[in-house]
Amino acid sequence: MSVLLIFPGRDPKVWVNAIKKEQPNVKLYVYPEEHNPQEITYAVTWKHPKGMFNKYSNLEVIASIGAGVDHIICDPEIPKNALITRIIDEQLTKDMSTFVLALVLDKIRNISLHHSEKIWDPQAYHTVDEENIGIMGLGVLGKSAALTLSKNGFKVSGWSKTQKQIDGVSTYHGERGLNDFLKNTSILICLLPLTSVTENILNKELFEKLPKGAYLINIARGEHLVEHDLLEMLDTGQLSGASLDVFRTEPLPEEHPFWKHPKVHISPHIASVTDPKKVAHQLMENYMRLRNNEPLRNVVDLKNEY
Amino acid sequence: MSVLLIFPGRDPKVWVNAIKKEQPNVKLYVYPEEHNPQEITYAVTWKHPKGMFNKYSNLEVIASIGAGVDHIICDPEIPKNALITRIIDEQLTKDMSTFVLALVLDKIRNISLHHSEKIWDPQAYHTVDEENIGIMGLGVLGKSAALTLSKNGFKVSGWSKTQKQIDGVSTYHGERGLNDFLKNTSILICLLPLTSVTENILNKELFEKLPKGAYLINIARGEHLVEHDLLEMLDTGQLSGASLDVFRTEPLPEEHPFWKHPKVHISPHIASVTDPKKVAHQLMENYMRLRNNEPLRNVVDLKNEY
Repeated sequence: MSVLLIFPGRDPKVWVNAIKKEQPNVKLYVYPEEHNPQEITYAVTWKHPKGMFNKYSNLEVIASIGAGVDHIICDPEIPKNALITRIIDEQLTKDMSTFVLALVLDKIRNISLHHSEKIWDPQAYHTVDEENIGIMGLGVLGKSAALTLSKNGFKVSGWSKTQKQIDGVSTYHGERGLNDFLKNTSILICLLPLTSVTENILNKELFEKLPKGAYLINIARGEHLVEHDLLEMLDTGQLSGASLDVFRTEPLPEEHPFWKHPKVHISPHIASVTDPKKVAHQLMENYMRLRNNEPLRNVVDLKNEY
Repeated sequence: MSVLLIFPGRDPKVWVNAIKKEQPNVKLYVYPEEHNPQEITYAVTWKHPKGMFNKYSNLEVIASIGAGVDHIICDPEIPKNALITRIIDEQLTKDMSTFVLALVLDKIRNISLHHSEKIWDPQAYHTVDEENIGIMGLGVLGKSAALTLSKNGFKVSGWSKTQKQIDGVSTYHGERGLNDFLKNTSILICLLPLTSVTENILNKELFEKLPKGAYLINIARGEHLVEHDLLEMLDTGQLSGASLDVFRTEPLPEEHPFWKHPKVHISPHIASVTDPKKVAHQLMENYMRLRNNEPLRNVVDLKNEY
């Protein structure tokens, strides 16, 4: 009954401290320090080395420290019986919505455009009521973003796999609803989970269903976007620009064409960052539930992959 | 009974069209085309040549096409008996609030910082609830900005010359209230009218009353700010940065130190731009009221200078 933290390439100290503070008696190992794999029942991870869980035959839970679990599920060798959990944290959700609003306002009011040009060249702006925001993905994050934008006067539509209802938001669902959703969207925001179905969903075929000159915001996962399709659509003017917070390779390589593209706005995956102090409680609550044979919270449905 | 449009350095065509559409029969001259000054009762202007109204002895109204009238009042030779009016337009007010929100979010979420750096260097962000926004000026624009920020979860205080009450906003007033207002403010927003009292109000003495590391947003007038005091406070770290939309000289001269200062965020006076189509009605309504001897709307109190 021990916990293993697996954060390749990150400093685990802040996580160790936060978890120890929450549960001083928990037996905790930080990968790759020496430990007996048979002893581990609960793994807390972000981008673990694929295949490593083969040796952990008593593993019962793999807990993601973020809202996404694609970094776990993409490993075909995760133990069949282990539950996968994710973080649902009010602050993370709020931060994501704030970031979405910041990117939308930046786009319509040309904030970073004017700043980066370093010349006096006033551009006409769009008003809030001129935009039709379309949000793909109406889970916890998508719904919160939709409500935040709607509260600020934007017309908002949403699209999801299954039917959803959100006050003040026009909702569409399924493959059948996609065309109607896209045809009125001037700013498309991707907040989908990354699954085998949603991978590469932001492609040329989809972009061509948007009104000419639409704008893309991707704050979900880099793998949602077919990069060369985006570049082609920017060249033809079908898309007027894109704000990207996530990329297939992160950090985005220095030589990547996105960096210098005048119509691409880049941020370094900072839409919302998990604060260990704020989510250690949730991680340890689930750990205690596991020990006490109680049902866990925020368990991922593996059929849906989210 | 004729109208004179005075827009030095601007193309008046869009204004002529908007006004003609609103009042096809109005007799309209565009300065400096030939006209008889005695015939003009109603002047519509932005930054008229100072002293020019000397010859307009029948002038009854000088109408600003914006929310500010400082560009009229700063002329000591405006006719004593002429009324000065300003624009109060719902869209202008909304645009200003949207812009304020955009700048605040840009600052706390490092949107244009990350974009302009063109390198992958994620910065820690501030959350909405960590900021104490302080708004100087609680007129139509200041109140709207306060409500917009408050609605988005920010803690908001406001300071004004006379006492004001706004739901959800802590208000302070007068010289006596200024210190208490400033001491908790992490982001200071200037939305004051420019008057002989408020000119140079953003100076070293005021900045030193803010918490160390506070941030300045000036979207009112360049003359509110003592520029070398700002540069000094940025150097000492008393201020962490500034977003400026207005400047003493506009366009901001190429050689001005603000352009290349790493802590100064510049936009080219685009917080809200009057749409002639939307305000021509208001201008012509007042013109007809003048002709019919009815009281005018949005008349400026010359004692207050706003």
